[in-house]
Amino acid sequence: MAAEPIPNEPPRLDDDPAFPLHRGGKLEMRSTIPVRNKDDLSLAYTPGVARVCTAIAENPDLVHDYTWTSKVVAVVTDGTAVLGLGDIGPAASMPVMEGKSLLFKEFADVDSVPIALGCTGVDEIVDTVVRMAPSFGGINLEDISAPRCFEIEDRLRAELDIPVFHDDQHGTAIVVLAALTNAARLVGRPLAQLRAVVAGAGASGIAVSRILIEAGIGDIALSDSKGLIYEGRDGLNPVKERIAAVTNRSRLTGSTEEALRGADVFIGLSGSTVHESSVATMSQNAIVFALSNPTPEVHPEVARRHARVVATGRSDYPNQINNVLAFPGIFRGALDVRAHSITEGMKLAAAGALAGIVGGDLSADYVIPGPFDDRVAPAVAAAVATQARREGVNRI
Amino acid sequence: MAAEPIPNEPPRLDDDPAFPLHRGGKLEMRSTIPVRNKDDLSLAYTPGVARVCTAIAENPDLVHDYTWTSKVVAVVTDGTAVLGLGDIGPAASMPVMEGKSLLFKEFADVDSVPIALGCTGVDEIVDTVVRMAPSFGGINLEDISAPRCFEIEDRLRAELDIPVFHDDQHGTAIVVLAALTNAARLVGRPLAQLRAVVAGAGASGIAVSRILIEAGIGDIALSDSKGLIYEGRDGLNPVKERIAAVTNRSRLTGSTEEALRGADVFIGLSGSTVHESSVATMSQNAIVFALSNPTPEVHPEVARRHARVVATGRSDYPNQINNVLAFPGIFRGALDVRAHSITEGMKLAAAGALAGIVGGDLSADYVIPGPFDDRVAPAVAAAVATQARREGVNRI
Repeated sequence: MAAEPIPNEPPRLDDDPAFPLHRGGKLEMRSTIPVRNKDDLSLAYTPGVARVCTAIAENPDLVHDYTWTSKVVAVVTDGTAVLGLGDIGPAASMPVMEGKSLLFKEFADVDSVPIALGCTGVDEIVDTVVRMAPSFGGINLEDISAPRCFEIEDRLRAELDIPVFHDDQHGTAIVVLAALTNAARLVGRPLAQLRAVVAGAGASGIAVSRILIEAGIGDIALSDSKGLIYEGRDGLNPVKERIAAVTNRSRLTGSTEEALRGADVFIGLSGSTVHESSVATMSQNAIVFALSNPTPEVHPEVARRHARVVATGRSDYPNQINNVLAFPGIFRGALDVRAHSITEGMKLAAAGALAGIVGGDLSADYVIPGPFDDRVAPAVAAAVATQARREGVNRI
Repeated sequence: MAAEPIPNEPPRLDDDPAFPLHRGGKLEMRSTIPVRNKDDLSLAYTPGVARVCTAIAENPDLVHDYTWTSKVVAVVTDGTAVLGLGDIGPAASMPVMEGKSLLFKEFADVDSVPIALGCTGVDEIVDTVVRMAPSFGGINLEDISAPRCFEIEDRLRAELDIPVFHDDQHGTAIVVLAALTNAARLVGRPLAQLRAVVAGAGASGIAVSRILIEAGIGDIALSDSKGLIYEGRDGLNPVKERIAAVTNRSRLTGSTEEALRGADVFIGLSGSTVHESSVATMSQNAIVFALSNPTPEVHPEVARRHARVVATGRSDYPNQINNVLAFPGIFRGALDVRAHSITEGMKLAAAGALAGIVGGDLSADYVIPGPFDDRVAPAVAAAVATQARREGVNRI
């Protein structure tokens, strides 16, 4: 007779290889100078350190040269919109924040510190980040739910003179723009001739729409859970009202799928489903970015029957739209010139550099580099630093 | 003809070896797991990390096992009382905070993050630290001026279930108690028979007095800039009023130096001056801890003419009272058992372990181990962990 399972036995987490890997966390702090004896200690700490402090007190700009603050980014979340998991709180968000720090370091040698906050009010988050900002050279906001994320970022950008960047918005937007730029080149049509439909009006949907408008997309319509967004529709928050005013010029109403008829581009950022029959109604040479993870809005192999270019968020299909292509290089470039902020111009420059790496190898299955292409972060960093200098938002 | 000096040429900082050493800061973040390919990425980050997040959301205790939060300490300051420099602000305090992180790592393999806050209000500091606390396993408060430091620590201890430890208070107090325990042993008198005078009623003066009272000192009198503190004296803040109620039983008034007549112990934590003639009035076998840095209240060689044991804060004389003997091991021990707090019992246990290392080698020039004695941090950590378990404030 087979043994009965023991009732209420906890799941054996370590049967899943993710758990032993994450045990004890994924980060450590290191010191970069030795403290082996009295002489080391008297230079690294008292009394020597007092001379460095005094010099900074007399000339505050020296803080950039003689501390690590100009090199280190805070990865800040409140745990309200973590991956596809939603509002799981600060503690449960920490593995993702540590992961982000790990990627910053591995992909662009950016030092960062994960900070998961135990508060969700806009004022509380803004106040807290402003108060801790003297310790950091940049703020990467992460997994903060919409629409609070927009106000939090706007207010922090206004209050701080270091880069503030909500990666769920702008990282996604930059990589989508890079891939779409190449996809448009492949099908031989300028962005200005393309009509796009974006499913999802959260952080990434709004930011993708904004950057595509800046880049000159022909027309773009967004949808949320209530259908297409248009001026005057019921149930729009202020952010959606503002995006409604500059999108959907043909004033489409109804469902995302209805809007796809004749559209050139679909960008899915919503976790919803799009049927094959709807993809089939899109224009010739359609471009489908089904970016929800782990389940794309439409299976990429299905979409490929009707679309010329298909991208997803998954690593097991071609054309992975992965934020890791953007955020490490962007902060690397911004920190390298000690930028006061990350401007729209710097974001567009990052997208241009990312698209440019594909170059002559462009094909339907290669509109965006892979995450382990080691040309990416240096190219993005250089473009961001150059643009920062061009706009005069650099310190060095 | 010799070249004229160029007017207004900035000082050449790099002629001082402290400056090249501190250039770029003293810390870096490292990742502890590899991300070399798609498979690594899918376990360290999405989709694998989502399973770890979900497990923590379902069982919050798992955050201790699967993130670095239980291993990492925030070194928090507002820059108001930095070394002997005073209120130099958060930016100029960063070299010290980084130095603290460096010492945590080098002396006890404790990971920590320096956080210099751009606010000085008690409510603001408390709120900010409470909000960031989910990211950390302990809070080391540093260089926050008195009397705010007392209320900030008390409130954080009440609100948080992780160790909160103001090193300027308790680190100093623990090392002083350890050294005084051995000095008393050397002169063959129990602590209960000793009368002590403490010059200075700031963070360290108050904390030293409190721990000596807990340890059973015979009598103790504190002084501030207005002279000796006694019940009912003018100009006492609430913290000084409370200490007045339990000290100075013989109700001495007047100056520190007057109180030294017949006293057994002097502990200087004030930056003031004590004349040789006053030291000469102390009891036989007097114990003098002249701890102000870089200038002790009385030169150790002068004090030694009249006192049996002399200690300073300096590394170039015997018996250096150095906080690095305490804080690394204390946090190491507290983190090792995931303590909810650092109790009075744990502080006394740390002092006992530190004193115990001197053992049979005790002499007038060796009442406290040197900072590079590698027995110190493990002994302190073990004593702190054992005491935490004894009091049941441990999680593991």
